[in-house]
Formats: sequence, C-alpha cells, structure tokens
Amino acid sequence: MKELLKSDERIDQLYADGIQIIQSKEVFSFSLDAVLLANFASLPKRGQIVDLCAGNGAVGLFISQKTEANIVGIELQDRLADMGRRSVQLNQLEEQMTLHTLDLKQTTTVVKKDSVDLIVCNPPYFKELPTNVKNPNPYLAIARHEIATNLDEVVKEAAGLLKSNGKLALVHRPERLVDILETMKRYSIIPKRVRFVYPKTGKEANVLLVEGIHKGRPDGLKVLPPLFVYDEQDDYYPEVRGMLYGS
Amino acid sequence: MKELLKSDERIDQLYADGIQIIQSKEVFSFSLDAVLLANFASLPKRGQIVDLCAGNGAVGLFISQKTEANIVGIELQDRLADMGRRSVQLNQLEEQMTLHTLDLKQTTTVVKKDSVDLIVCNPPYFKELPTNVKNPNPYLAIARHEIATNLDEVVKEAAGLLKSNGKLALVHRPERLVDILETMKRYSIIPKRVRFVYPKTGKEANVLLVEGIHKGRPDGLKVLPPLFVYDEQDDYYPEVRGMLYGS
Repeated sequence: MKELLKSDERIDQLYADGIQIIQSKEVFSFSLDAVLLANFASLPKRGQIVDLCAGNGAVGLFISQKTEANIVGIELQDRLADMGRRSVQLNQLEEQMTLHTLDLKQTTTVVKKDSVDLIVCNPPYFKELPTNVKNPNPYLAIARHEIATNLDEVVKEAAGLLKSNGKLALVHRPERLVDILETMKRYSIIPKRVRFVYPKTGKEANVLLVEGIHKGRPDGLKVLPPLFVYDEQDDYYPEVRGMLYGS
Repeated sequence: MKELLKSDERIDQLYADGIQIIQSKEVFSFSLDAVLLANFASLPKRGQIVDLCAGNGAVGLFISQKTEANIVGIELQDRLADMGRRSVQLNQLEEQMTLHTLDLKQTTTVVKKDSVDLIVCNPPYFKELPTNVKNPNPYLAIARHEIATNLDEVVKEAAGLLKSNGKLALVHRPERLVDILETMKRYSIIPKRVRFVYPKTGKEANVLLVEGIHKGRPDGLKVLPPLFVYDEQDDYYPEVRGMLYGS
C-alpha cells in the first residue's frame, strides 16, 4: 500500500464501515462531523449522490457501503481531492465513486442540473479569516473558513443540482442555525429534519445536522432526539461508538 | 377561599413557587408549557415584564416570586383574565401584577411603547381550526389556534413594546421553528437562546423554547442542553420535577 501514500500521509480506518481513508495531519483529516453527516443523511438506495466540499472524500467513502447510488465528490483543492481519489482506489470503489478537482460552481460540468437525489455537504463553518491571522495553513484555512465559498453559494448550487424532492443534508454549527434555515428556504429547500449534537450532557450543542427537501411542502420540520458524544467518563456514547467502530 | 371560585373552577398549587392558581377544566388550565417558559425566560431583576396571551395568568404568577419587576398580563378572553385577576388577589400580588382584558394589538393603551424589559408569550400554537371541526369549546379554540391572533402579530406587537436589548421569550412547537426564527428576525428580535424539550429520550422534540433580543447583534445563537420530561418509568426527570415541586 505504501506507494499510494505521500510522506506526510497515513491510512486510517473507519471500522464501522470497513473503509480505509488516506489522511494527512498537515493537509486534511476527516473529523467526527463527517461521520455524523454520513450517518444522518437519508440515503437513496440508488441514483445520484453528490458531496460538495468533499475534502479527502470521507463522507462519500463512509456512505458508499450503505447505498448503491453513484457518488460524485467535488473538491476545490487538488491536494485533498487527490488523497480522496487514492482512497477510492484503495477501497476498490472506482465503479461507484469519483472525485473531481473543481470549484463547486463548476459542478454542472460533471453532473447534470436537476438530476441529483441527495447532496451531502460539510462546508467551511466559519466566516472569513480575521485579517490579523498571519500565515495560516492554506489547506485548512480554505476547508474551515468561508474564503473560497460560503453558505449561500453552497445551497444555491445544491438547489440547481437537486431533482424535485431531492435532499440536501448539511453538517454545520448551531450558531449559524437562523442563517442556514433562511438560506435553505431562499433556494426552495424546505428544512425537514434537524438534529443537534452535544459534546456531553449539560453542555450546549456544538454541531447541527439539517436536511431539507428541494421543493418540499413548506412545513413538517422534525427535531430529532439529541445526540451526545462523550459520557461522564469521556467515553463515546453507544450511538457514536457504533458509527465509529460498528458496536 | 370559596367565594373566589366559580362552580367549574378549582385552586391548583405550583409547589415549587408556592403559588396558587385558579383553573377550570371547562375553560382553561395551565400546561407544563407555561412552567417551562417561566423557567426558561431570562428574568430582569426589576423593570417591566409583559405576558402576551396571558390566559389565566399562569406564567406571570410563576415568575412573580423570582423578580421584583412589575408584571402586566394581556388576555383577550375576559373569562380567563378574570380567573387570573382572582389568582393575583389569592396570592396577594396586587402590587406587582395586573391582568388586562385586551386584544394584544391594544397593549400600548396600558403599557408604553419601547418600555418593556421582557415579554413572555405562550401563544396559540396551531394554524386556524379546520372548518370541519364543529362546535369546538370556544375558550380552548381561541387559546390554542391562531383564530384571534397569530405568530406575526404577536412578534410585531412585542417588538413595538420592547426596549432596545429587551427580550422576547416564547414557548411554541418545533414544527414552527423556521417560521418563528424568520418572524423574530423580521421584527429585529435576534434569536439568542433556543432549548428543545423532549417528552422522553429517543423521541422527537415536542416543545420549543426560544428567546431573542430586540435590536441585538445578529449572531451568537446558543442551543441549550436538551430537556427531557419523563424518564423510562414515566416519572418526571429531576429538572422538571424541580420546576413543579421544588425538588
């Protein structure tokens, strides 16, 4: 396997799905957020799934075992998309999954408008970098901050790609809740399922999962049971442990 | 005490606050939602609090023990406001609390515009009654359905009454989340705290508590820890038991 790896890279395993994934601390490693999103989105059995802001392809790789749908990942940074493409090889998923180095605004050059059943997206969470931050790691800065894209652009692009009744599933920060729900609605993606993730009981939520239906009926939002990550002993709660280790 | 009561009425007690409250099954009884709202709202130490859609005055009565603020309740239905006024007497709160029989659009006839520190509101939750519902109990229909007022009207009235940085705390249904956040923002009330209440673990939320600040800065929303009502044995969880019984 070594020939697949660059010097700063390693292969990690998501045991729950038997997926191996190429990562790099210097450039990009998937976070729990990708695992949460992969487990939250309502997967179609077949059809077309697109991962916008795909990074190293983590979300697409994780869901590949649970659906027969074709999966296309769109990632602006070639260094990250390239890791993802090698992970696709490593897991022998070439028939099902492709990663493109593309600005998400160019997605329709590889996926037809109005053709997608599900879009998953783990976008940059934070507003643009404050100007006083010197010499940030450019890979991580672009992945985390709204430098190369922003919420409005992601949701607008998603709405153009989705079929009627296609779904958009996002992982984001609860602080942005109002903005997110408004933006989805602006592009006719009606929020239908929301789940908040709490690091521990008694703490405020730090992750928001939200799914909407393109041109869905304008009501019927459900707020799913809360998800707690760590228990009092700092061990994973069973639901999260199941997502990571399969039991 | 009997002379305070009409034939269909009884006196209930909220043990946690030592408050007695006149209720009637036929007309109106407070629900857990009123208790949740009274415990959620950020109370000013003094100043002016207004309860819109006050019903039998439950929310105002419950918070009266935790603040020195003056409390004004506005209730359209005189039969309900009248119960509230007798509860005010019963608890000897005449100096602190007043209930007016008024359409909430007339609130500025008794409370100055731009003068209020906190508005609490347990409004009608549901859209207008379906036309196929025959002979509903008119008291309950008006209290529960958007017949005499609606969300837009409540929030608009609140915005007119609140000082800059005054707060609006609402209890409502999670299905209406998008609508509620949008409506608050439309009237410059920036959502700052949200809490979801779940009947049990593993169930969807059935109550939404939300508080916003009038002319607040447009970010910084917090999603508070979830509140569960009943445990596996159908006993109240300690937090809710504390609200009702004080321990």
